[in-house]
Amino acid sequence: MIMQHSLAATHRSFDRALAPALTIDDGDTVEFDCPSIFDWGPGASIEDLKNLDLAHPHIITGPVLIRGARPGDALAVDILDVRLTTPQGVVAFMPGFGLLADDFDEFYVHVVRYAGKFGEIRDGVRVPLEPFLGIMGVAPAAPGEHSTIPPRAVGGNLDNRHLRPGTRLLLPVEVPGALFSCGDGHAAQGDGEVCGTAIETSVSAKLRFSLVPGGAGTAPRAQVSAPVERPVDCGHLVTMGVGNDLYEGSRQAVRSLIELLVSEHGLTRQEAYVLSSCAADLRVSEIVNVPNWLVSAYLPLSVFESEEA
Amino acid sequence: MIMQHSLAATHRSFDRALAPALTIDDGDTVEFDCPSIFDWGPGASIEDLKNLDLAHPHIITGPVLIRGARPGDALAVDILDVRLTTPQGVVAFMPGFGLLADDFDEFYVHVVRYAGKFGEIRDGVRVPLEPFLGIMGVAPAAPGEHSTIPPRAVGGNLDNRHLRPGTRLLLPVEVPGALFSCGDGHAAQGDGEVCGTAIETSVSAKLRFSLVPGGAGTAPRAQVSAPVERPVDCGHLVTMGVGNDLYEGSRQAVRSLIELLVSEHGLTRQEAYVLSSCAADLRVSEIVNVPNWLVSAYLPLSVFESEEA
Repeated sequence: MIMQHSLAATHRSFDRALAPALTIDDGDTVEFDCPSIFDWGPGASIEDLKNLDLAHPHIITGPVLIRGARPGDALAVDILDVRLTTPQGVVAFMPGFGLLADDFDEFYVHVVRYAGKFGEIRDGVRVPLEPFLGIMGVAPAAPGEHSTIPPRAVGGNLDNRHLRPGTRLLLPVEVPGALFSCGDGHAAQGDGEVCGTAIETSVSAKLRFSLVPGGAGTAPRAQVSAPVERPVDCGHLVTMGVGNDLYEGSRQAVRSLIELLVSEHGLTRQEAYVLSSCAADLRVSEIVNVPNWLVSAYLPLSVFESEEA
Repeated sequence: MIMQHSLAATHRSFDRALAPALTIDDGDTVEFDCPSIFDWGPGASIEDLKNLDLAHPHIITGPVLIRGARPGDALAVDILDVRLTTPQGVVAFMPGFGLLADDFDEFYVHVVRYAGKFGEIRDGVRVPLEPFLGIMGVAPAAPGEHSTIPPRAVGGNLDNRHLRPGTRLLLPVEVPGALFSCGDGHAAQGDGEVCGTAIETSVSAKLRFSLVPGGAGTAPRAQVSAPVERPVDCGHLVTMGVGNDLYEGSRQAVRSLIELLVSEHGLTRQEAYVLSSCAADLRVSEIVNVPNWLVSAYLPLSVFESEEA
């Protein structure tokens, strides 16, 4: 019999030694209550950011033991629903973290209020709300505590914005029972998450679990059934970074985008950086024309539309 | 008076010393006839590929001198039309070139026949035709011949598949008159062009030129007015590469995609590689979760659809 569970128990690191907070069977569904470490309310401030526990920068909900899961299997996670549970979120950056840490050495906190289908960055600038879980992962085989910051072969902090309802994510199982956890709700994010945060938010997520025996593979993979982009009729602003280093190319492209947002759209540098993190997508246009690869940043111009879409 | 010109003169390198093949005014339109070095017809073979002049691997049409263009200006190129001019194209790879040169050390030539809106990779596998110019660029300030292979700050071999009709591309002018050339028609390409070629093809392209005084910037940029993705209702297959090196992450993601295409969709390894080059998009999902970035490859599952879309 297929069961529907709910879970609110949280922890702060991946660790195979953690006792399961919930045990389920292949095929079961779980509704996860996922609080955010950025749940600071409408009055969120730089002091909140400075007080963040950087050793444990996420709250994740779990772990869930899936009976019968064995190393070498894939855990299939069908993403059924992800809903926002607060009226606002926060996008922020801090010294030493983010793609342009060299250019932005300050603490910055920006509250984004949700209004219908959009999050409002500032008057006349808004991003479509497309909530997803930044973190979905299972416990690594290696013993001990594992930081929630880096993603790994077992998933974790993938921050892949297309892992939305309608998607099946496949994660390589490394320990018996898999020990799945999730959290790090994002209300909107561009491919890249360039300032180091998205619109950070608490969410409720409904996931269904099943096992693919022997299907682990070497890294997460997915089948996304929804379109990965909504048609944007008013187009995109595109900036490019050229060179042999994709990381530097990404920096170039985002720097150029920020310059345009400041000079042509009247944003502050900080607003431009967080808007890029929430709405601009980094694509590898070409990775073969030796010695120069091309990274392009795509910002949908709909962020400047004033009417309801 | 706005003039409409046409041009078929070609050359093989960017070089500020080249005499202009055409001189135009700000606002003029030019129809470029762009042959492809891969115009080998339906019987294209590995021998054709082996005989390629690797020192001059492109034919480009130009150069066009735009009166009044000065270093520091941007040359705005409005892409009005790009049309295929042959009934088939070629996707190919060769030893030592391409993202997975370590895995594919053979010569391979694959003729892609055009049928309506699609290019046929093999029975039951086809990609939508979205022709564009792989190369659009102006002459670099540095004297001498410059290879057409690497893109540069002045543009060139950008291979950005979204530079399609409806787009305005802005290129930094480095020499008086700009000296614009274009070519390298691609009938379809994924972001990344991972095997080193797209569906290589001859095209006819209609471009309009105008000047933005002082608008050079440091790299090409664009405003894309068409949607960058058509909605793909049947979804995408997504593979991921995790690690600190975006290039290695890209390789991981494409390797995993090729494995799935072989094991689950019955393609040969070579077919899977060229299909990835023609239709799979590399995105930088996150570039901030130290020390591991995530690169994801997206293949639209519509390539396996049998009915007319």
